[in-house]
Amino acid sequence: MRDLIIIGGGAAGLSAAMYALGKQLDFLIIYDTFGKAGTAQHLIGQAEEEYLAGSEAVRLFERRISVDVAHALHDQVTDVTKVSGVFHVATRHHGLKEGRTVIVATGATPIALDVPGARALLNQGLGYSVTTHAHLLAGKTAAVIGTTVRALRGVAELARTAARIYVIAPATAGLETPLARALQHLPNVEIYDGYEVLEVVGATSVEELTIGRQGRSRRLQVDAAFIDLGLMPNSGMVRQIVQTDTDGFIAIDERNATTCPGLFAAGDVTTSFGEQHLIAIGDGARAALSAYDELLPQLWVYDARPAD
Amino acid sequence: MRDLIIIGGGAAGLSAAMYALGKQLDFLIIYDTFGKAGTAQHLIGQAEEEYLAGSEAVRLFERRISVDVAHALHDQVTDVTKVSGVFHVATRHHGLKEGRTVIVATGATPIALDVPGARALLNQGLGYSVTTHAHLLAGKTAAVIGTTVRALRGVAELARTAARIYVIAPATAGLETPLARALQHLPNVEIYDGYEVLEVVGATSVEELTIGRQGRSRRLQVDAAFIDLGLMPNSGMVRQIVQTDTDGFIAIDERNATTCPGLFAAGDVTTSFGEQHLIAIGDGARAALSAYDELLPQLWVYDARPAD
Repeated sequence: MRDLIIIGGGAAGLSAAMYALGKQLDFLIIYDTFGKAGTAQHLIGQAEEEYLAGSEAVRLFERRISVDVAHALHDQVTDVTKVSGVFHVATRHHGLKEGRTVIVATGATPIALDVPGARALLNQGLGYSVTTHAHLLAGKTAAVIGTTVRALRGVAELARTAARIYVIAPATAGLETPLARALQHLPNVEIYDGYEVLEVVGATSVEELTIGRQGRSRRLQVDAAFIDLGLMPNSGMVRQIVQTDTDGFIAIDERNATTCPGLFAAGDVTTSFGEQHLIAIGDGARAALSAYDELLPQLWVYDARPAD
Repeated sequence: MRDLIIIGGGAAGLSAAMYALGKQLDFLIIYDTFGKAGTAQHLIGQAEEEYLAGSEAVRLFERRISVDVAHALHDQVTDVTKVSGVFHVATRHHGLKEGRTVIVATGATPIALDVPGARALLNQGLGYSVTTHAHLLAGKTAAVIGTTVRALRGVAELARTAARIYVIAPATAGLETPLARALQHLPNVEIYDGYEVLEVVGATSVEELTIGRQGRSRRLQVDAAFIDLGLMPNSGMVRQIVQTDTDGFIAIDERNATTCPGLFAAGDVTTSFGEQHLIAIGDGARAALSAYDELLPQLWVYDARPAD
């Protein structure tokens, strides 16, 4: 049985593994993919690699952990149960792994835009990450689909240099924040309140969006469009044993502990998701420290009493 | 005037700077020393470099930020005031710097052991970081002076392999946690409740501690001793404008905001100090994200309206 099993190979999971490595814990990190989970976040026309704060650190952790065959297992976790105080972590290809403590750091997946044209034009001018592409749209026209905090932050960034930004706001709720109100006063921002995207149109890359409200539709010409309809947490494997919010994000306290003793969670799968590598690094380490604190009284193994 | 001034070159400050770099903010990081602030944490007999989770990431940030002369200033900050909504950051050698927002990440300094012998034997068997040296004391005798959470964590780590650990507990308060109670049952841990260290004795490295309680003293032979009497936050420069706790740690909310609008804090100078590089990295980034959110509505600079 391992001291600690970490599920997930994103920033939070890798950081937890780095901490566990430093503490010489008997741990196992089970990962499906390393680095940023979820949908690819590249847009056509993106010449150079984008600069993401923290991605270098994540790659550094990845280089160190991925070669550590004693501690890293490439597999998918299907289920986690707790039997007589021991966690049973079921994997797809390597059977059951047992652990005293578990950290869930499986991330979240962006909610897809499920309309005609969206699948074909994904990564062809249609993407999920406005914030890393804002500087490529200076003088151009972009649409942001959604009103999450991250979406509105993206709109604000685009507004610094883009000629025009259309905000397609299916739900009005997100428009009542101070930032949203400030954006409504910017001359290059147009908000389509209550509208939904009906179709993404373009030959080889996005050219137009068809949007509609209450049976009426209109077309918007755009150079790029960004989908930010929120995230779906990858928490299915533990939803039977921990408390989540209504969207499935795992509830954690300030120590990254869940409602299930011995089970911790970090990163975008939790209610305190930050969608930032550097923040996830901190949360992963905090979860590992909390797991370590819980393990410490059990780790006592001294058996070489001195001669005197 | 800068968008953001970051004070401090430890893990939290460097991480905030990395985030600001990624967001192309007009920021300045003012640092006295890079990396871990405070007292040197090396013990005699330490052959190889210790492995600290996150230190590689911090060094990576340091390499990137230290060469960035547009954003990095080597100086000491003496005072921070807020005048008509603008922060005035006074430096020792480079005059006044102005910023719209400020992040204080100046760390904390371990409370020193001020008794005869302590100064001479510092780093000669007497140190501040038990947790990074525990593995060097297998089969040996060590003393831990203090009962902070970190001190007791260190005792638990030492107990795995050290022959004997003396805990010198000047205050009884720290001994009421679950971990402290578990430690009292370990056969190789002896707790000296209510005792203080009176003298550190040794020719070239620590050999004995003289401890005392209520006028009575005794001597303990040790191979090493670790001081962990708590931390003093380096918050003097902002104590006039933000709320701190009675020890001077800066009060922050879950966004790393202080009681002074536009002023954020991260890392060991705050009430949520974690004393871990990886955790400080997360907190620094969270502070920078919050500063960025506050700046966003002000950053609107679009002035190249399209021709049509």
